[in-house]
Amino acid sequence: MSEHTYAVIMAGGGGTRLWPVSRKEKPKQLLPLIGQETLFQSTVKRLEDLFSPDHILVVTVEEQAREMRLQAPEIPEENYLIESSPRGTASVVGFAAAVLHKRDRNAAMAILPSDHFIRNRDLFHYLLKAAFEVAENGYLVTLGITPTQPSTAYGYIQQGAPLDGQYKYPTYNVRRFIEKPSEQAAGQLLRTGDHSWNSGMFIWRADTILNEIDKQMPELGGALKNIASAWGTESQTEVLSENWRGLKVETVDYGIMEKAERVAVLPAGGLGWSDVGMWSSLFEVLLPDMDGNIATNSSLHLAHETHNTLVYGSSNERLIVTIGVDDMVIVDTGDVLMVCKTDQAQKVRDVVGHLKKHNQEKYL
Amino acid sequence: MSEHTYAVIMAGGGGTRLWPVSRKEKPKQLLPLIGQETLFQSTVKRLEDLFSPDHILVVTVEEQAREMRLQAPEIPEENYLIESSPRGTASVVGFAAAVLHKRDRNAAMAILPSDHFIRNRDLFHYLLKAAFEVAENGYLVTLGITPTQPSTAYGYIQQGAPLDGQYKYPTYNVRRFIEKPSEQAAGQLLRTGDHSWNSGMFIWRADTILNEIDKQMPELGGALKNIASAWGTESQTEVLSENWRGLKVETVDYGIMEKAERVAVLPAGGLGWSDVGMWSSLFEVLLPDMDGNIATNSSLHLAHETHNTLVYGSSNERLIVTIGVDDMVIVDTGDVLMVCKTDQAQKVRDVVGHLKKHNQEKYL
Repeated sequence: MSEHTYAVIMAGGGGTRLWPVSRKEKPKQLLPLIGQETLFQSTVKRLEDLFSPDHILVVTVEEQAREMRLQAPEIPEENYLIESSPRGTASVVGFAAAVLHKRDRNAAMAILPSDHFIRNRDLFHYLLKAAFEVAENGYLVTLGITPTQPSTAYGYIQQGAPLDGQYKYPTYNVRRFIEKPSEQAAGQLLRTGDHSWNSGMFIWRADTILNEIDKQMPELGGALKNIASAWGTESQTEVLSENWRGLKVETVDYGIMEKAERVAVLPAGGLGWSDVGMWSSLFEVLLPDMDGNIATNSSLHLAHETHNTLVYGSSNERLIVTIGVDDMVIVDTGDVLMVCKTDQAQKVRDVVGHLKKHNQEKYL
Repeated sequence: MSEHTYAVIMAGGGGTRLWPVSRKEKPKQLLPLIGQETLFQSTVKRLEDLFSPDHILVVTVEEQAREMRLQAPEIPEENYLIESSPRGTASVVGFAAAVLHKRDRNAAMAILPSDHFIRNRDLFHYLLKAAFEVAENGYLVTLGITPTQPSTAYGYIQQGAPLDGQYKYPTYNVRRFIEKPSEQAAGQLLRTGDHSWNSGMFIWRADTILNEIDKQMPELGGALKNIASAWGTESQTEVLSENWRGLKVETVDYGIMEKAERVAVLPAGGLGWSDVGMWSSLFEVLLPDMDGNIATNSSLHLAHETHNTLVYGSSNERLIVTIGVDDMVIVDTGDVLMVCKTDQAQKVRDVVGHLKKHNQEKYL
């Protein structure tokens, strides 16, 4: 990769639907949900073949940064960009672009979530390289994921005509972005064959996205100019927090991508991608046994007439026995036990909401 | 009740199917499975309105006696009859009869399991009184339970003609005892209308049962004579253990009742009886909420779209969340978590067998 390419890891979210393992203090990306490494560590490792550590940036909040520095000490301190408070992905993207553009006028960057899983690392690297080539032509590039089911959990991207020019990988103009659809609508989108899931992975030059922000979100653009000019000076933190405070909370999809003109998509199949969005996602990324069961983290599972059931334990001394259990997720932590039908895993969010409402903060 | 009537509580068993709460060290009857009292304590309390504590005997093994003395200190020490090793219910019944007959030549006794539940205490008392009247005429009397389902977990008793004479409660000659039937056979028995479940509750005079033992199990009869003549002397324990060792392990049903001639049954409906034989039995004895759920022992249950599910916890600090769960039993102890489909509850026994076979004694 060129010396002007950078990776920016976005790590602000909570991962409510992976409660009770994901907690306020230790959100999803900082947990070893899949194997020994945390999702954040896997994300960093996945990038280190392409980017040197000083070309990997992390945008996050201070509460999480402390743990991240421990988990990925190879990333230099100045590459941690700390939001004074969460202001949505549009601000995050702009912040990283402004800092990188000040550092390197030719910077190009890949924006990547900290908490996704990708099985096929080689293909991922190939796609990133291809996307950076497209980005050099002034495009806002997004990686689409070829859908495998009519999911209502993701936004969709409809592709248009192939992009003019010679590229390493089939690349298309984006016709439109579609917000999370109903189940029926998702089925229709799937059948057209020209829709991808919006993975939240973007590739562009810093100047391209900054120009687009100036056009579409001028207020954010102005704040970013203030931040950039103070960056590297003594007043850096103060100026950041002053300008950050008033920002409108907005996503990059809605705030920028949906109305941008030069947007391209690389529809990727076979990445083995998962956003690990909820407990049922683990069936996509971990290998089940012959009966479809998965025992992960520290767990001693005795499965008797049990099928398609995930057990996430917390101690190899504690025996978890299931009898006549099908299609279930069992998560056993120190202070909470959760038993959830796999196809109801999205409702974990409702339970978290209920606990919040009833002041059961100690379990959150 | 007359000064010659006694209650004998049989407490030897383990309650394997109530694992992982029922353990080798602390079997079913010594646990507070229903409310605050243990099943043994409830059994004693249920009898105390009819019998003074010195007319209540307990036959058990030494390992359990220690805990029982703590749980029911009102029962005098000499009323604990300790089997040197378990030899089946025929021996237990004979042992108690021999000791009581030596104490009181006119003794009549009710044999009662230590680990059953009876909701309707008044009816139970009424039936016992009625049964003692029948027993005074030289009958071996058994309380039958009117079946509410074609259960394969119990033996059945077929009634014959009504007993001659005037009795407080409809009383019948017993036509035959039937061992645990197949499901199909159970359905047929139920439809006849003249079969009861064999509850394991018997009422008779001590001399009646001792004569019957002499007739049908002469070896046991001989041993009991030796034990009785040494009872109350210095050699009591030695003689007991010598005579006990060689005894054939036999149930009172198979060894005595099935071939006895003067056997009577009082078929009881409405007792609210349960043998609390397995986890699913708790749905019969505890009151579920509107959704059919039960949270018992120490448990903090948050039920989200959950129905007919029992949660048996071990701490009010530990939150147990269920989402989209139906017809399940969840038992959460310190070292074992069990999640079991309610209609598979009898298979807990197989799991215990599996653990035994694989030397996982620490969980038993």
